[in-house]
Amino acid sequence: MAQQFASDNYAGICPEVWDIMHQANKGSVPAYGDDEWTSRAADSFRALFETRCEVFFAFNGTAANSLALAALCQSYNSVICSSFAHVETDECGAPEFFSNGSKLLVARTDHAKLFPEDIRALATCRSDIHYPKPKVVTITQPTETGEVYSLAEISAISETCRELGLRLHMDGARFANACAALGCTPAEMTWQAGVDVLCFGGTKNGMGVGEAILFFDSALAEGFDYRCKQAGQLASKMRFISAPWIGLLESGAWLRNGAHGNSCARALASRIEALPGLSLMFPVQANAVFLKAPEAVLEGLRERGWRFYTFIGGGARFMFAWDADPARVTQLADDIEALAA
Amino acid sequence: MAQQFASDNYAGICPEVWDIMHQANKGSVPAYGDDEWTSRAADSFRALFETRCEVFFAFNGTAANSLALAALCQSYNSVICSSFAHVETDECGAPEFFSNGSKLLVARTDHAKLFPEDIRALATCRSDIHYPKPKVVTITQPTETGEVYSLAEISAISETCRELGLRLHMDGARFANACAALGCTPAEMTWQAGVDVLCFGGTKNGMGVGEAILFFDSALAEGFDYRCKQAGQLASKMRFISAPWIGLLESGAWLRNGAHGNSCARALASRIEALPGLSLMFPVQANAVFLKAPEAVLEGLRERGWRFYTFIGGGARFMFAWDADPARVTQLADDIEALAA
Amino acid sequence: MAQQFASDNYAGICPEVWDIMHQANKGSVPAYGDDEWTSRAADSFRALFETRCEVFFAFNGTAANSLALAALCQSYNSVICSSFAHVETDECGAPEFFSNGSKLLVARTDHAKLFPEDIRALATCRSDIHYPKPKVVTITQPTETGEVYSLAEISAISETCRELGLRLHMDGARFANACAALGCTPAEMTWQAGVDVLCFGGTKNGMGVGEAILFFDSALAEGFDYRCKQAGQLASKMRFISAPWIGLLESGAWLRNGAHGNSCARALASRIEALPGLSLMFPVQANAVFLKAPEAVLEGLRERGWRFYTFIGGGARFMFAWDADPARVTQLADDIEALAA
Amino acid sequence: MAQQFASDNYAGICPEVWDIMHQANKGSVPAYGDDEWTSRAADSFRALFETRCEVFFAFNGTAANSLALAALCQSYNSVICSSFAHVETDECGAPEFFSNGSKLLVARTDHAKLFPEDIRALATCRSDIHYPKPKVVTITQPTETGEVYSLAEISAISETCRELGLRLHMDGARFANACAALGCTPAEMTWQAGVDVLCFGGTKNGMGVGEAILFFDSALAEGFDYRCKQAGQLASKMRFISAPWIGLLESGAWLRNGAHGNSCARALASRIEALPGLSLMFPVQANAVFLKAPEAVLEGLRERGWRFYTFIGGGARFMFAWDADPARVTQLADDIEALAA
Repeated sequence: MAQQFASDNYAGICPEVWDIMHQANKGSVPAYGDDEWTSRAADSFRALFETRCEVFFAFNGTAANSLALAALCQSYNSVICSSFAHVETDECGAPEFFSNGSKLLVARTDHAKLFPEDIRALATCRSDIHYPKPKVVTITQPTETGEVYSLAEISAISETCRELGLRLHMDGARFANACAALGCTPAEMTWQAGVDVLCFGGTKNGMGVGEAILFFDSALAEGFDYRCKQAGQLASKMRFISAPWIGLLESGAWLRNGAHGNSCARALASRIEALPGLSLMFPVQANAVFLKAPEAVLEGLRERGWRFYTFIGGGARFMFAWDADPARVTQLADDIEALAA
Repeated sequence: MAQQFASDNYAGICPEVWDIMHQANKGSVPAYGDDEWTSRAADSFRALFETRCEVFFAFNGTAANSLALAALCQSYNSVICSSFAHVETDECGAPEFFSNGSKLLVARTDHAKLFPEDIRALATCRSDIHYPKPKVVTITQPTETGEVYSLAEISAISETCRELGLRLHMDGARFANACAALGCTPAEMTWQAGVDVLCFGGTKNGMGVGEAILFFDSALAEGFDYRCKQAGQLASKMRFISAPWIGLLESGAWLRNGAHGNSCARALASRIEALPGLSLMFPVQANAVFLKAPEAVLEGLRERGWRFYTFIGGGARFMFAWDADPARVTQLADDIEALAA
Repeated sequence: MAQQFASDNYAGICPEVWDIMHQANKGSVPAYGDDEWTSRAADSFRALFETRCEVFFAFNGTAANSLALAALCQSYNSVICSSFAHVETDECGAPEFFSNGSKLLVARTDHAKLFPEDIRALATCRSDIHYPKPKVVTITQPTETGEVYSLAEISAISETCRELGLRLHMDGARFANACAALGCTPAEMTWQAGVDVLCFGGTKNGMGVGEAILFFDSALAEGFDYRCKQAGQLASKMRFISAPWIGLLESGAWLRNGAHGNSCARALASRIEALPGLSLMFPVQANAVFLKAPEAVLEGLRERGWRFYTFIGGGARFMFAWDADPARVTQLADDIEALAA
Repeated sequence: MAQQFASDNYAGICPEVWDIMHQANKGSVPAYGDDEWTSRAADSFRALFETRCEVFFAFNGTAANSLALAALCQSYNSVICSSFAHVETDECGAPEFFSNGSKLLVARTDHAKLFPEDIRALATCRSDIHYPKPKVVTITQPTETGEVYSLAEISAISETCRELGLRLHMDGARFANACAALGCTPAEMTWQAGVDVLCFGGTKNGMGVGEAILFFDSALAEGFDYRCKQAGQLASKMRFISAPWIGLLESGAWLRNGAHGNSCARALASRIEALPGLSLMFPVQANAVFLKAPEAVLEGLRERGWRFYTFIGGGARFMFAWDADPARVTQLADDIEALAA
């Protein structure tokens, strides 16, 4: 089918990843991560993040985020998140499953970002034993609505967390897009801003399968290797989910891929934001565009073969991956413009 | 490093899989299995198994087996297995984790195969409420010691299961090796012999990542898609763990790969079985050779650069994958012979 | 301390229960429910409910409700409830713990009752695999705000459940109060109205420890005895949590106790509802009164030694148990009246 | 029925417990343990154990032991125990359920006591990630076979635990019997010997419902109150499972009850140990007698109306509770003697 922007999961494996998988696919290599590709991939993360973090590899984002939260919680603890958070809305109970019952405390606001006051409200409204004890805050960077927390916003959140005895987890399914958007270093956006654990998305960044979990506080990583094993997230032929990171990180593809998706989103947004009868539902800061349009326009897009989701507020979501074709973005903009007229 | 036979997880991705991943890595493809590669892969399984089975794809064997068992059990049920069973010895509690507590009832025998009398003993020795209610039998085909259940043995087991109200699960991490060894069809070894659920190992068969779960009774598969999702086993870019199966199954590589490993094992066994002071710990029926040898011989092998495990009975385990180099097998046999002399 | 109405858990054991415990405390009695007291208690339920229901005994309401929901759900299923539901607000994640991750789908309305349209909205808004598949509806009768579902309301809910393939669970922590309020039979309020499973609260009804779980569809009860055992809810000296039910049910104390609490609530409500500056937050239909009053009034009550909770909407909650002393209720009304003046 | 010695769960509530429940059943008392009975009961434990331990109350032993183990473990950890351990043989998977998958590593010996070498073997035989990381040792005092660890044996175990980084849990379902048998103080048998957590059985000691969990290292108790709540083990009318401890501990009944059961066991043993064709299966050190006898003898006992279990090695188990009637013990001895003749 012609290229679609319904999801950045529609894209394949980027060349830098493909090439290194090809190289890694040679000879006998020890299993379960006891190999040079895996240690080199971990070192690549440490170099990129400018710190001695603990690095683990998992198969997908559901597991990466759920395992990270489970590592920070006991079953009777709770996790504070936004009502837009993917862990709340689209994981079919995975965080509760992996943690054996840790409840998500959801900020019932109308924005995807979580703010210190939201956290404080949920963490301090009750202190009785019938309310699961808050232990972690999770933020998605960029958010599910394509917005990016500023470094100051992250720092403000982490300060609130410290004050309240909470840990800070970042769901970075599209971490590269956020880095590209802010123009900051990965270190600045994470541990320097007070993030304890990061799930760095590889799949949306150009891999076929794979996510990384980074613990900036080694004590929190204790036993995490066993946790991954028990939960079915330890790859036997680990090199095939670790080496790809070398392809992404050492070549700089991770950031280029993110920047490319962002630029496509901006390109679309700039074409359509001023069109009459249309509006952007959220500021376009990363690789997503949420278009509010009359149903006739959306229906017209579908008739012209465009696929998109409308699960957030009924608007059409377009997500641009590392492989988005600018000509195809233009075509989408043209179609929207024509339908809006 | 020079090729090693410590594990069939040391091998890479076979050409047939690599080629189809290359083909699959083109264009926009819907996520989460709603794509043509995935439906074609499922159909390939149905063709190979000559039945309308329900097919699911998971990342690794830990998860595939644990999810299958969890689907057959409630938390208060138990699973009957051999004391050699991988689910008992090497999964770090994964079956218990996925099922939320289903206990493994282990036949304390000195053989890896499970027999009807073992099953009957564990299933009928108690019927009180303090003993977790038996619900499933799991067998590994071939076993962890490289032995293969005959069709008659499997049928006898399944008859016992039916009589006792138990379901039969087959851990087929090396299913292809067993098929090659018996020269039977996949259908004969599974549903025609009374197996309810099969976990078919892709990783050891030549894939980089991926296993398949086949339910021969559709009713048992109800909700299994949700179960996979919640447990972090639903791939967003599903094509990369489904398309490889097309490469394996449609080309016949699955069986060739299995047969090749088996022939290497037989080649080694035939060279060493008669050597003085040495013995084979188990009949060599699939792709494994377990060598009982004086510690000096094992130490000598290590000094010559050979890697192997000794976790079963102190013998040296050699496992031959799809890529085993016959010359290298000969070299191993030569080294053993020299050291035994 | 002087009698308080902060909670109906502040009351002790009623005479009918005490007496039968005394009788039951004689001689050797088989353990784990294999005794005559327990079978008689189960029969008492069947007589009262006019049906051959399956009856189980658990220690407390947290466990009773969570086990019942776990029996109706797989981990990837979800449970539809009101935002006021005790299972959502005050169980520290117990339902998620017992079910290994079943998510609660909460109707975000401003009333404690759940209505068919709330259920329909949550059950049908999504059907994708990322949304935990709805399987059960739970309602609290009477609600956490002291309101009582009419038989027609329950039937309307159960019809919606049947239509949508959902099971209906009733949290009857104060079931007796609801029966007394409606003047209907237990059968009418439960299985005749389409309820599948009822948790009948014994503790608030006059017992020291104990709840009962009634399955009106025997198939749903399969394995529930094992489930209770595994979850630490099988009493070894079962007679002490089963015999008390005989004391409650056979003597009619269950209903008298409920009616008494209700009448005290009505007595208080009738004294204060018309007072200037005060209001009742919810209709007083069972044994609870929620008083909306200026902070000065609440503070004044505290100074006069009254204890109460304000966790719902900031109002003062008064709950009347089987032992509520009418003179003390009058005293409370007098104090409120004086402070309101 | 005439008094039976099949189980010490057949006994009722002892007078000291009954009396204090009667006293406690007066007036309004705050719920969930925020009451004077509960704090006094906790203080009674602290006085008896001569230390500032953390004290929690649960409904039964299944839950008490499973919660304690869950508090010491993560899901990927393992618990070392004897093959006779109740947590392994008779809890229907409860430890795995509460811990979400912690595996029991079972010493496959023919004795019920666990020795340092058993622990060392299980804890050190493997250190790979596929083997659940050992974290806790659990011993039952007295054992399921009625034997009592000496203080020296416990100290030796705890030293091994410390050396290996393991925690030591004591299942004290019949703790009082062990204290009476050894004539030592509770402190000597627990924290002074290196025990970290004790589950002190109340039910078998004369209560109707209730167990206590004592943490001698406060750090290990963090969040245990929430854990109990979430797992359905927080009593709303807590006084009824806490006050009974006051009755047991302050009156000395706990020890008298234990000593009485022990003396009945010794009385029976002394009568039958020398009878021809009979033997005692285990040293009689607490309140249990395991009689090895020809099937005809056992059958004869059944015909004379005696109930007993034969689940350990086919011998007849007799268990003597606080209420065992010496005349009835004599009658049992007479019957055995007559049948053996």
